[in-house]
Amino acid sequence: MTIKEIQNYLGQFFDPVELEGEGEGLISAPAKIESAQKGQVSFVANEKYVKYLSTTAASLVIVHHSVAVDEFSHTISFIKVSDPYTAFVFILKKFATPRLVAAKGIAPTAVIGEGVTMGEGVSIGACVVIGDRCSIGRNTVIGAHAVLLHDVSIGEDCVVFPSVTCYDGTIIGSRVVIHSGSVIGADGFGFAPQRDGSYVKIPQMGIVEIGDDVEIGANATIDRATMGSTVIGRGAKIDNLVQIAHNCRIGEDTVIAAQAGISGSVTLGRQCVIGGQAGFAGHLELADRIQVAAQAGISKSFLQPGIALRGYPAQPMRDQLKHEAMLRNLGAMKTKLDHLEREMKELARR
Amino acid sequence: MTIKEIQNYLGQFFDPVELEGEGEGLISAPAKIESAQKGQVSFVANEKYVKYLSTTAASLVIVHHSVAVDEFSHTISFIKVSDPYTAFVFILKKFATPRLVAAKGIAPTAVIGEGVTMGEGVSIGACVVIGDRCSIGRNTVIGAHAVLLHDVSIGEDCVVFPSVTCYDGTIIGSRVVIHSGSVIGADGFGFAPQRDGSYVKIPQMGIVEIGDDVEIGANATIDRATMGSTVIGRGAKIDNLVQIAHNCRIGEDTVIAAQAGISGSVTLGRQCVIGGQAGFAGHLELADRIQVAAQAGISKSFLQPGIALRGYPAQPMRDQLKHEAMLRNLGAMKTKLDHLEREMKELARR
Amino acid sequence: MTIKEIQNYLGQFFDPVELEGEGEGLISAPAKIESAQKGQVSFVANEKYVKYLSTTAASLVIVHHSVAVDEFSHTISFIKVSDPYTAFVFILKKFATPRLVAAKGIAPTAVIGEGVTMGEGVSIGACVVIGDRCSIGRNTVIGAHAVLLHDVSIGEDCVVFPSVTCYDGTIIGSRVVIHSGSVIGADGFGFAPQRDGSYVKIPQMGIVEIGDDVEIGANATIDRATMGSTVIGRGAKIDNLVQIAHNCRIGEDTVIAAQAGISGSVTLGRQCVIGGQAGFAGHLELADRIQVAAQAGISKSFLQPGIALRGYPAQPMRDQLKHEAMLRNLGAMKTKLDHLEREMKELARR
Repeated sequence: MTIKEIQNYLGQFFDPVELEGEGEGLISAPAKIESAQKGQVSFVANEKYVKYLSTTAASLVIVHHSVAVDEFSHTISFIKVSDPYTAFVFILKKFATPRLVAAKGIAPTAVIGEGVTMGEGVSIGACVVIGDRCSIGRNTVIGAHAVLLHDVSIGEDCVVFPSVTCYDGTIIGSRVVIHSGSVIGADGFGFAPQRDGSYVKIPQMGIVEIGDDVEIGANATIDRATMGSTVIGRGAKIDNLVQIAHNCRIGEDTVIAAQAGISGSVTLGRQCVIGGQAGFAGHLELADRIQVAAQAGISKSFLQPGIALRGYPAQPMRDQLKHEAMLRNLGAMKTKLDHLEREMKELARR
Repeated sequence: MTIKEIQNYLGQFFDPVELEGEGEGLISAPAKIESAQKGQVSFVANEKYVKYLSTTAASLVIVHHSVAVDEFSHTISFIKVSDPYTAFVFILKKFATPRLVAAKGIAPTAVIGEGVTMGEGVSIGACVVIGDRCSIGRNTVIGAHAVLLHDVSIGEDCVVFPSVTCYDGTIIGSRVVIHSGSVIGADGFGFAPQRDGSYVKIPQMGIVEIGDDVEIGANATIDRATMGSTVIGRGAKIDNLVQIAHNCRIGEDTVIAAQAGISGSVTLGRQCVIGGQAGFAGHLELADRIQVAAQAGISKSFLQPGIALRGYPAQPMRDQLKHEAMLRNLGAMKTKLDHLEREMKELARR
Repeated sequence: MTIKEIQNYLGQFFDPVELEGEGEGLISAPAKIESAQKGQVSFVANEKYVKYLSTTAASLVIVHHSVAVDEFSHTISFIKVSDPYTAFVFILKKFATPRLVAAKGIAPTAVIGEGVTMGEGVSIGACVVIGDRCSIGRNTVIGAHAVLLHDVSIGEDCVVFPSVTCYDGTIIGSRVVIHSGSVIGADGFGFAPQRDGSYVKIPQMGIVEIGDDVEIGANATIDRATMGSTVIGRGAKIDNLVQIAHNCRIGEDTVIAAQAGISGSVTLGRQCVIGGQAGFAGHLELADRIQVAAQAGISKSFLQPGIALRGYPAQPMRDQLKHEAMLRNLGAMKTKLDHLEREMKELARR
């Protein structure tokens, strides 16, 4: 790809796209600014990294319009846009090779049930097992060893990595990515306690519904609803080892970092950001655009959109930071208290 | 199923089972009271939901004997029992369809070792791999892609979902359910530190033993013992992504919620309830019927049965709540202290 | 194995190795001192366990040179070394049977891509899927159902347990052990936020590199780098359900306990010990030999080697223990404050 071609490509997303330097050079790969070599493209989106412009061997660097580039080596070309980070993401996309290079069609070792329907261009990997009456949309790739139980529906242009398991009845939208080892639709953790201390299993009769453009990391678990659906909203991003329990509803474009755990029947709003290892008690609700700090423990509903939560039990960031400051100040309080006590004795003695 | 048939069925578990309304109506499915349709059965076990009795379209609702039903629509029939929640669980069971509908017998793509014994009615799914000398009890279903290493023993009427791995020597009781992705019997995390800072692996020569009626969620890990057995007691319920380390002993009917982590050689009593993301230090013991709050960190043994624990390091609920109240009160303490300080200055100046 | 043979074997690792008692007895298995039977070998490395020497039925016990053994049963032989614990680990190794007893060669149900190279003595289990251009070193065992995407390189003498997934490009050293369900090289969790609240996926173009002698537990996840490599240093030990995000660098011989989570671009030094469920914010660095307590939350870099960290946000052990002591003392502070307040009123009234 020539520099000029990259400029034209970015023109789809940004206006203007300014080129400084010659446009004929060939770019073979993207790279980090610290380690980029000749023939590579990199970017600087953060002031901290501007220093690398003096030393980088990159042939092309994407920067913000405001960066003065005259002082840097004439062997570097620059493309200036309003958001160099996102521009670089688009360049990465252009250079990305597909992770799963399955041949189109059905691997001879795959085991396909009865009444399965598949769109054009579907690719089914080695040893994949697909249950009866599943449907798989156009151009979807199912990696080796994935298992779909019966009546699973997957949309178009999805990528299901190896060893994913989808239980019966799961409904998955289009352009969904699910990484290896994730389990979608296992039974919710529901048991009715009996007088003798044992439990009777509550049959989990619902399903999981996953919207379009969702990405799910590796070894995550999303349980089916007891009745009805566990819902992952369009565009939500769920990291590795996240637990989403039965009957949860995750809002659109909500992001959940690794190892967070969402208990049963929790509703998260749209565009929330949940930190890693955060935990949620059951049956609560978060409004839209709420940010939850890593390791926080959410014990009740928060219905004001856009706030940030932190701590255990979690409270709004401002209150929590004040609380943490007070905790850090405990030593000073103790000193003051001891001092007062001495003064008091002094005074009482007078 | 007719309403009358449901009444008769519940008669196995409850006495009396009172029917109000006509008994001939056909019931096709269970549903939540908020969304139940004509021909469906639902329940109300909690006062909060009584309001839905005025508006539900359900044809049958299970309620407690004490609920006055005369005021509600004559199109609803009611069945009254002493525990409508558990009654509804039994109804769910009646309507539940099997999740794994494997054909009886051994799938042609399964790989079976030497000296394997299987009871009648066993079902082995596609691509299952079973090592030498395994034994599988009557009517047990092994889902696609499960792997049993050599010398694994599984009892009767178990359901092993797809992609479960059981390492060699694992012993599993009857009526056990293991969800996808769980790994039973991997090596305990044992390494002997050497003087040069490196580690020598401690061979993990024990096994895992799982009692009858245990249910294990998706992507959980239960490590084999270094020597002897890691034991999961009869009736224990273990949720998704739970970690149980080598040489643990989990008591009968103990429940462990998602993402909790139990370090090596911990002993939990019977009928304990462990909250999600709770963590346990190694080599400690909990008495029977202890409740541990979510995200708690248990750093020592607690030997008094029936207490509740909370916090980090965890302490009995009462102490911890008092402690948390005091923390919330810190601001007031500080105000009071500052006030006293001013007064003291005032007084000293006199 | 005779007692004399065990003495000779330990002579490879220790000098001197003293035998007390006769050396001809046959030893069939290692066992815990509490439960050892005739014909078994055990050890005592901790004063707490010396009491068992009076009652054990073991035929051979490994002890420290300093233990006076004359008083114990003449049916026990003793071998004395400077480190009985490590000596026993070596004995365990001697008695350990291989967990994966795959036949040498390639199982007929395995699916091997084009251009794959394998060393002598490689063992490929049932239904294993190996992508194009992978290379597998001498004597490496790949368990059933493991999936290697294209261009994966694995060294010599590795054991990959069933159902492990390695994404494309992963590089693994020699003598590495990876337990079932772990996913190596899935996409890092990188998404560029857009103005409308949605996200654009950042292509994850890097790889994972795992050094020699690493062991990885079950269901762990190690994400590939966005660009460059996520690096697991030689000798590191990673427990079950651990999350290691994109672009992390884990130092040599560093140990990470179960369910810990390391966010993106974190660098851990050599010989660190990370407790279970500990969490790390992104882009921070820990020096060598740092110890992190279980459940700690690390929110910034710590660059002093050898310190211990604890709490949330984590701070050096000494400060944190002082802080925790002060928290425990809050009740006393409150009492003192209330007392002072009363005295003050008294005094002001005079």
